[in-house]
Amino acid sequence: MKQGKLESKSKIPVRNSRDLSLAYSPGVAEPCKEIKEDPEKVFDYTMKSNMVAVVSNGSAVLGLGNIGASASLPVMEGKAVLFKSFAGVDAFPICLNSADNEKIIETVKMMEPSFGGVNLEDIAAPDCFIIEDRLKEETNIPVFHDDQHGTAIVTVAGLINALKVAGKSLSEAKVVINGAGAAGIAVIKLLMNMGVEEIIMCDSRGAIYEGRAEGMNEVKESVAKVTNLERKEGSLVDVIHGANVFIGVSVEGALTTEMVRTMDDNPVIFAMANPTPEIMPDVAKEAGAIVIGTGRSDYPNQVNNVLAFPGIFRGALDVNASHINEEMKQAAVYAIADLIGDDELSSDYAIPAPFDPRVAPAVAAAVAKAAMETGVARKNADPEEIAERTRKEALIEE
Amino acid sequence: MKQGKLESKSKIPVRNSRDLSLAYSPGVAEPCKEIKEDPEKVFDYTMKSNMVAVVSNGSAVLGLGNIGASASLPVMEGKAVLFKSFAGVDAFPICLNSADNEKIIETVKMMEPSFGGVNLEDIAAPDCFIIEDRLKEETNIPVFHDDQHGTAIVTVAGLINALKVAGKSLSEAKVVINGAGAAGIAVIKLLMNMGVEEIIMCDSRGAIYEGRAEGMNEVKESVAKVTNLERKEGSLVDVIHGANVFIGVSVEGALTTEMVRTMDDNPVIFAMANPTPEIMPDVAKEAGAIVIGTGRSDYPNQVNNVLAFPGIFRGALDVNASHINEEMKQAAVYAIADLIGDDELSSDYAIPAPFDPRVAPAVAAAVAKAAMETGVARKNADPEEIAERTRKEALIEE
Repeated sequence: MKQGKLESKSKIPVRNSRDLSLAYSPGVAEPCKEIKEDPEKVFDYTMKSNMVAVVSNGSAVLGLGNIGASASLPVMEGKAVLFKSFAGVDAFPICLNSADNEKIIETVKMMEPSFGGVNLEDIAAPDCFIIEDRLKEETNIPVFHDDQHGTAIVTVAGLINALKVAGKSLSEAKVVINGAGAAGIAVIKLLMNMGVEEIIMCDSRGAIYEGRAEGMNEVKESVAKVTNLERKEGSLVDVIHGANVFIGVSVEGALTTEMVRTMDDNPVIFAMANPTPEIMPDVAKEAGAIVIGTGRSDYPNQVNNVLAFPGIFRGALDVNASHINEEMKQAAVYAIADLIGDDELSSDYAIPAPFDPRVAPAVAAAVAKAAMETGVARKNADPEEIAERTRKEALIEE
Repeated sequence: MKQGKLESKSKIPVRNSRDLSLAYSPGVAEPCKEIKEDPEKVFDYTMKSNMVAVVSNGSAVLGLGNIGASASLPVMEGKAVLFKSFAGVDAFPICLNSADNEKIIETVKMMEPSFGGVNLEDIAAPDCFIIEDRLKEETNIPVFHDDQHGTAIVTVAGLINALKVAGKSLSEAKVVINGAGAAGIAVIKLLMNMGVEEIIMCDSRGAIYEGRAEGMNEVKESVAKVTNLERKEGSLVDVIHGANVFIGVSVEGALTTEMVRTMDDNPVIFAMANPTPEIMPDVAKEAGAIVIGTGRSDYPNQVNNVLAFPGIFRGALDVNASHINEEMKQAAVYAIADLIGDDELSSDYAIPAPFDPRVAPAVAAAVAKAAMETGVARKNADPEEIAERTRKEALIEE
């Protein structure tokens, strides 16, 4: 009779009159009055302190496309389960029956009192950019579009380690990104903020450059302004020549062995198309790739967002952060990357495993620390204690 | 660190890769596709089948007034805990930062994919009427304003039994209701639907009658059309004369011993002002009242909504009802009233105790049966099995 993967649970079940008088009337009046006096106390007295809304309209569900709000509910329930299982974060799926950005923004703002954070999920570009930007400005809780930033954080963490294996630094790497969707854009922003200088993004028409006449939009124009400064034209096969890194957020088969062979020595390939990557790992290896990452669990170096979002929200909530800022994202990148020591790093081990129990605690501690250092934390907490508690609350097994 | 009374719980915690592939990717794609094909399957595959939104804007919180959305969150969390503890219903508090009816309606409609029902709570009149009416029309899940209907159902259940003790039937009772708020209006509607013919409602200006010039509004006009057909004027002290029943949803001290003495023999008094009733039970008894009910747990005959809402939603959800209609409400009334056998009925025992474990199962079964009989159930279930399961899932102790 009771379906689904998520339920509500009472921390204080009401079994008798005494429980009732504490949990409800008349006991509940006191915290209400205190919050009325001092709105910040809502974090002390309610579930808000640990509750994230997983918000989607089902317009871009991974591998399924625009299936709508109801059909996306199993995914959002699953996401909520991951928040809880990996980092003890309470999360609740809010599936919104609308394709209207203004209505979605308005609705999330209206619900803000119930939640300590918002994880936007599976919303199509460019709507997802507009919705995230507006909500970040117009709410006082962290808003994070996981398809963008979760993917970017894990990708860049993996890339840092992969480049170490290849003997290159971020600043000297030449990166080509294939696919101009939400994830690709976010990867570019993060790479640039972390010191990568040479990036070319390709879409289905080939390299994006300033002044390209066709198939542009506002987001691609802004990408064109800061990448591909030599204004290289042509398709992927042209611009991949001599690159150190290929990042694919595109489609099956987009990268060929011939292309890999034209890349610089020891190229790094992150082929994240789902379920079949832009190039299969064994094929890429054969063609000379030194580190290959994919979205798949059956190959080494899985780029899995679960390495990022549970710990990021855990850290942000534990210091009552008002935002998830750039410094917090970069802290998460290094927390993930640094879990693999230089002596352990290899072609097959550049990204920690999804169920490595060290990940969420390390990310939570690093994110909380960065939040405190950059002034977006509204309370202080000891990062070590946050890590320790995250370890205890997580349900995962190695 | 983790505050509040409610948390999310994974029915299927994700502990390892195998769990992950079932609960999330790639396993989750299958139910998504099925729901996309047949939207009703969302009830088979998701938490929606057992999840109620407890929606408030905090504009009329019991005893506290208009404290706003954030300050009302402890109450709504408490309410969610009661749903779970009394009947195994999952519930989640949605506190909406708005006083705009249209925005509230729009927001709840947008969130409909996530929920199997909506419990409106502590929203000021007349907004609560507008919001409830519109949502009942414009959604496909049960919408129930508990302050109105929960109160009305328990009050009328108690009244049926109290009148038995007094030797009167509903159809011959003369009822005076003091207080023209949401609860009072709902009590009138339910009483009339159940056969009470003589009702007079008073507000702070006295009896409401058709043609009264001052202090009227749309709702009171509609009350005036169907009650007080003799158009009696005057204050409570005038119209209480000869009445059999006083129902107070007003303020402390509104009913005096003198007034009780002018009522018919063996009057029934439901004095539900909170926390101090319109008249104290011992005083009312002294003045001749035969049955006295209040909102308090420290006197007999407590009118507590917890007797109604958990079982009502349990029954509605278990047959996937599209609405909570009049027949379902009346079924709940009789289910509550009938738990006290004629041989047990007394002045001090006209309403079951809040923690009587028979209540929610009986209400759930009766409501589910009424839903099936009136065509609002979208699936069938055996009422006996519903009762049995409710008994098992409830956490309360007698």
